[in-house]
Amino acid sequence: MKSRLIAENQLVPEQLAVNETLFHVANGYIGVRGSFEEGVPAEVKSIRGTYINAFYDTEKLHYEERYTGFPDYSQCMLNVIDAQSIKLYLDDEEFSMFNGRIVSYQRTLDAENGTVNRTVHWVSPQGREIILTVKRMASFAVKEAFLISYHVKCLNFKGLLNIISNITADVSNMSAEFDPRLGTSGGNRLDVSRINSRDDIFSLECKTRNSGLSAVCTMSNKMDNSSKRMTAETSRGVSEIFEVEVESGDEICLEKFAVYTDSVRFEQPLEEGFRINREIYQAGFKQMAARQRQYLDSFWKNADITIEGDAEIQNGIRFNMYQLLQSASNDKYSNIAAKGLSGEGYEGHYFWDTETYIYPFFLFTNPGLAKNLLMFRYNTLDGARKRAREMAHSKGALFPWRTINGDECSAYFPSGTAQYHINTDIAHAVIQYWQVTGDTQFMADFGAEILFETARVLYDVGHFRNDGKFVINEVTGPDEYTACVNNNYYTNLTTQHLFEYCDSAWKMLKQSFPAALDRLAEKINIVFEEIAEFKKAACAMYLPFDKKLQIHPQDDSFLERKVWDLDNTPKEKFPLLLHYHPLHIYRHQVCKQPDTVLAHFLLEGQVPLEIIKNDYYYYEKITTHDSSLSTCIFSIMASRIGDKKRAYDYFSKTARLDLDNLQGNTEHGIHTAAMGGMWMAVVFGFGGMRFNGGQLYFRPNIPDCWKSIEFKVVYRGRVLQIKATGTDTIIKLLDGDAINIYLNDKLLKLEPEEVTV
Amino acid sequence: MKSRLIAENQLVPEQLAVNETLFHVANGYIGVRGSFEEGVPAEVKSIRGTYINAFYDTEKLHYEERYTGFPDYSQCMLNVIDAQSIKLYLDDEEFSMFNGRIVSYQRTLDAENGTVNRTVHWVSPQGREIILTVKRMASFAVKEAFLISYHVKCLNFKGLLNIISNITADVSNMSAEFDPRLGTSGGNRLDVSRINSRDDIFSLECKTRNSGLSAVCTMSNKMDNSSKRMTAETSRGVSEIFEVEVESGDEICLEKFAVYTDSVRFEQPLEEGFRINREIYQAGFKQMAARQRQYLDSFWKNADITIEGDAEIQNGIRFNMYQLLQSASNDKYSNIAAKGLSGEGYEGHYFWDTETYIYPFFLFTNPGLAKNLLMFRYNTLDGARKRAREMAHSKGALFPWRTINGDECSAYFPSGTAQYHINTDIAHAVIQYWQVTGDTQFMADFGAEILFETARVLYDVGHFRNDGKFVINEVTGPDEYTACVNNNYYTNLTTQHLFEYCDSAWKMLKQSFPAALDRLAEKINIVFEEIAEFKKAACAMYLPFDKKLQIHPQDDSFLERKVWDLDNTPKEKFPLLLHYHPLHIYRHQVCKQPDTVLAHFLLEGQVPLEIIKNDYYYYEKITTHDSSLSTCIFSIMASRIGDKKRAYDYFSKTARLDLDNLQGNTEHGIHTAAMGGMWMAVVFGFGGMRFNGGQLYFRPNIPDCWKSIEFKVVYRGRVLQIKATGTDTIIKLLDGDAINIYLNDKLLKLEPEEVTV
Repeated sequence: MKSRLIAENQLVPEQLAVNETLFHVANGYIGVRGSFEEGVPAEVKSIRGTYINAFYDTEKLHYEERYTGFPDYSQCMLNVIDAQSIKLYLDDEEFSMFNGRIVSYQRTLDAENGTVNRTVHWVSPQGREIILTVKRMASFAVKEAFLISYHVKCLNFKGLLNIISNITADVSNMSAEFDPRLGTSGGNRLDVSRINSRDDIFSLECKTRNSGLSAVCTMSNKMDNSSKRMTAETSRGVSEIFEVEVESGDEICLEKFAVYTDSVRFEQPLEEGFRINREIYQAGFKQMAARQRQYLDSFWKNADITIEGDAEIQNGIRFNMYQLLQSASNDKYSNIAAKGLSGEGYEGHYFWDTETYIYPFFLFTNPGLAKNLLMFRYNTLDGARKRAREMAHSKGALFPWRTINGDECSAYFPSGTAQYHINTDIAHAVIQYWQVTGDTQFMADFGAEILFETARVLYDVGHFRNDGKFVINEVTGPDEYTACVNNNYYTNLTTQHLFEYCDSAWKMLKQSFPAALDRLAEKINIVFEEIAEFKKAACAMYLPFDKKLQIHPQDDSFLERKVWDLDNTPKEKFPLLLHYHPLHIYRHQVCKQPDTVLAHFLLEGQVPLEIIKNDYYYYEKITTHDSSLSTCIFSIMASRIGDKKRAYDYFSKTARLDLDNLQGNTEHGIHTAAMGGMWMAVVFGFGGMRFNGGQLYFRPNIPDCWKSIEFKVVYRGRVLQIKATGTDTIIKLLDGDAINIYLNDKLLKLEPEEVTV
Repeated sequence: MKSRLIAENQLVPEQLAVNETLFHVANGYIGVRGSFEEGVPAEVKSIRGTYINAFYDTEKLHYEERYTGFPDYSQCMLNVIDAQSIKLYLDDEEFSMFNGRIVSYQRTLDAENGTVNRTVHWVSPQGREIILTVKRMASFAVKEAFLISYHVKCLNFKGLLNIISNITADVSNMSAEFDPRLGTSGGNRLDVSRINSRDDIFSLECKTRNSGLSAVCTMSNKMDNSSKRMTAETSRGVSEIFEVEVESGDEICLEKFAVYTDSVRFEQPLEEGFRINREIYQAGFKQMAARQRQYLDSFWKNADITIEGDAEIQNGIRFNMYQLLQSASNDKYSNIAAKGLSGEGYEGHYFWDTETYIYPFFLFTNPGLAKNLLMFRYNTLDGARKRAREMAHSKGALFPWRTINGDECSAYFPSGTAQYHINTDIAHAVIQYWQVTGDTQFMADFGAEILFETARVLYDVGHFRNDGKFVINEVTGPDEYTACVNNNYYTNLTTQHLFEYCDSAWKMLKQSFPAALDRLAEKINIVFEEIAEFKKAACAMYLPFDKKLQIHPQDDSFLERKVWDLDNTPKEKFPLLLHYHPLHIYRHQVCKQPDTVLAHFLLEGQVPLEIIKNDYYYYEKITTHDSSLSTCIFSIMASRIGDKKRAYDYFSKTARLDLDNLQGNTEHGIHTAAMGGMWMAVVFGFGGMRFNGGQLYFRPNIPDCWKSIEFKVVYRGRVLQIKATGTDTIIKLLDGDAINIYLNDKLLKLEPEEVTV
């Protein structure tokens, strides 16, 4: 049931921080963690946070031994002004989930209406009894808006009821010295520059310490009941206090409207903050809720997946898709952070996760959002060009391994900057966009430039070896458990693909957009001879293959390493990266995630199925799945090689990764890439979808324990609906012109009507 | 002339900091940079410093991404209490080299008497004229003592002369964010704990901020002339002020006695400081100077090298040997820092430089000092065992790449901890000691334990590959321009040697020191089966060799890298490590220093001369000599392959490396390793000395422009004197029993008499 995707029925203090993640509300622009409005006692672990996508502060990076090209400063998505606070007093008793008695409690995520709802029936220590009902949303219609409807029913007492609603800059970021997955410079990074009010709207304006950005939060509160209303201002915030005389049976309702604006997107964030707040205040919670529902109806129309016969998984996948929607930026200033807007893990940075794991979901359900994600990269191309120069490449662009503003901020290069595949990953997303949407205008305006510039750096990194082969040395593949290797199969293969598509793009532009090509020649000095060199390198690309084992070694020397004895590694020593020195890990055959298997998924090319199988089973034995990006790929490729048991087993580990906190760090935020991976495991795995050279393929093969799956994909202007049972597949063309597709290797022409096999 | 090894005849402000290095005085325990007693104006660059070997402070190391096994804290040799200050006033005029007029000036290093002497004939702005003569020494006889004799001759005036002599803790360490060869946490790190006096001796006691060490400096001043004497104390120091009525022609003489003691070596540093100061005060400067001369006579007796026909080089080599003596610790708490006690470069850390580049000089001229150096390593074995566990080795010891107190403090592991050859380097020094001294008792008591423990870690790092070869992956060789490679030739070869000598040591102990073997079995659980495994690994050791090129590749993939275009690299881009990202450097065939060539020097073994030549010329083409350890090896091995021109050219670059500031950073301290390398270039290079299996070889081949060289070596209790001209070699056995040696591949029996060839 989408309207109750997840539910919490009991208060488990140890689970609180994890649930703050799971019940966060976000809309791609702002994210508010699911903390209780009234707060929790100090001894209970809570990570209270509110984030604006791409709103960050910088801090000088410190190196004990600094070398040329090491990034200068860190970037950290800031915990911004807190607007979720509402305190409730019944006479002199303060409401808290941690005193008095909870008669009943429920919190739910409603993905149909886009709200998180909390209902608690509570008796105070002195016996005052209320039912509190809170709804909150981050509006998809008005991205700046975060709203709370706060409803108190007084069951058995008469007296004074006080509600304090505030906004405050008393917030700080987490930090952790010993976990490289968190930042090291936490604390409060916001200086209050102004507190103000106009009519009944209050504003709090803050400035970051170093990055010079401003954020404004405006607040208004609507209380229908007649009440005494007061204002209290501190140096770091402002509160509105409502005092109401109540009797048994009275119902008090407060609507709180908070609006976030910032200097990244707005020239006058303060003005805009007042304006938007006025608008939503006038609309009121109910109308905003209706617009939220409308947005989500349209989202689910193409995105929804139905799985008959597995309620838990059905829930898991809808949860994941909803989280991806919550996380996805829809402006050119931001992207999708590794943890979306749900927490501070990985400091709000954008990685390859977006393009490789999340992007396909949007590309096939909401191509407009997918294009936005590419535009973020296009808009940061200048930063990537600068970075390429810093790395001694005289031409081209090198995208940062981790970034918010387009500058590299990865401080540990062996598993950071050395991952040159970030370039091929972004290029691959561009190529996919072209293939799936057929949008050649995008290629002319933006896409080709990304391809040519990224290709230049890879061409410069590699060279033609004495035997004529094109080799790429000293890079790190997606599997960070070996670093700075030669001829990483994944990197070489995706580079080959990029080089080939540079040629295709050049030819397409030459034929259809000659002016665009002239513009590019002018802008980046690209000439056909360079494209021809790429093509030559693509043809000569060296792809490691071991004849004896009949597998693709992950890199040149991978098979020479000692095999890590996973069977005898104690459970508490995982993830390895937290328990062993990198050198010890690098010295072994052991994978965090299987990048050779991933390469087969992305670019199967001419590799025989037998070899794909060999690779699969070889790497499976030495993979720890310490990365949340691992199991989904093993599920997809198990489907590919016909290993149904593994496909399902790995899938179930991906599907509920955050819901069941399988990585143990959901409190730091959701794993957006794994969520995207799960969508891929359904559509590319069980649905057997592939696309290649303008052609769409399906080869469904669903788990035995399921009755059916049904999903939709948007492809070249059409909407297709695929329903597969264990025996049959029904593909409907719901929208758009007739199209040829392959189903189980047979060509089918889809007309706007039903086709059964 | 040893009594005027170097001389400065003119004040060149830009050269001041470099000359502070060149004119520093040290004795292995304390070092005082050659700053002017009276100081210099603020705008003149001066690095004023005083150091105690192994007296350090720690600072928490900060990592933006921290992984397991990264060292916790830095170690930094501190700039300690300054005792070189003496200010001089002629009435109201303060003496300074930077005002008034210098009629004549000279500063010399007298390596025969062990002093630095300054004479300046100066006229004040108002015309007062003096001749100032200052001598300073760090006593070799009393290691704690630093002495100044300060003599003023008044030429043309009458009035009040004031001399202020002080000790102060107003000192601080340098820091540099952008040069990885300097530390990053400078500033003042000494807290004053007590200022005191007894009789006329003043004491200043300081404590380090974090490491909890104490240092005491006591000061006494002797002034023969009748004078008014006052004391001034500040919170960070104490001064004695002498006021004398002078007339033209008067000569005023102050002797200043400073004594440094510390809590590392002394239980009661304050008491000892007073005691020693009283002693040297009573002895007086003259008697201390006599003892200094005596010590140096004995040093030069075995150490001196005479080169006829090249005064500059003659000077250079004596300067270098003298600096090595000044730098070498003679206690178990310290070693030889990369910059000795002359400056703060590399933070006073001990590296492999000691064992590989400096140690042979002492081993063949002063085996007692050489043994001390090994004892430092033995005494830090426990730290090395702890380090091995941190690096996931369940047995054995891994010596730190850089350290003061025995703990690893290298913050950048690719060119730090990854250099596992530090283990084989130290082991090699032990093996050399055994071979050259025949001291089997040392092996039984200490040496074998070092061999077995270091071997264990290398054995654990490596493994037997499928083809049966023993391979060593993911280590960095001495050439830091490639990092974390597989099968570095140098590392594999020196490991093979270590493994073989474990077997030899075991057999020797079994036969001659069975009780020692029992003790070791008890202490470190070593069993013969383990030694047999080492032996097996030695036999199976993989040593990369390229059949086509007939060379030894530096590592498995070295030849697959792009060759760096050195011809077209602008001069200002050197050293490369300061101008290119490590990944860019690692990706190329380019060497900071030629470790394969070095391997041939250390362990020529069965490698045919033809192959050694091929390696030499191959690596020469791609070596930048960005390391000061490079040219000496090229000189030695040029001698080996009979390339006399190169042998001399490279030698001359090494010989005057600091005297001519060839690396451009002599202001941060001398290059002790290059100095040791120069000695090796004479004795092993031009003298053609080798030793192997208890056998000594000479094959002299001196530069054409020299008439002769003469040097001595101490070998198995004998003292040999070798004199070689372009045509003849005369080897005398100056001391000890008859011995067989090889001269130009012919066996000779040396009796205590002359042998001519």
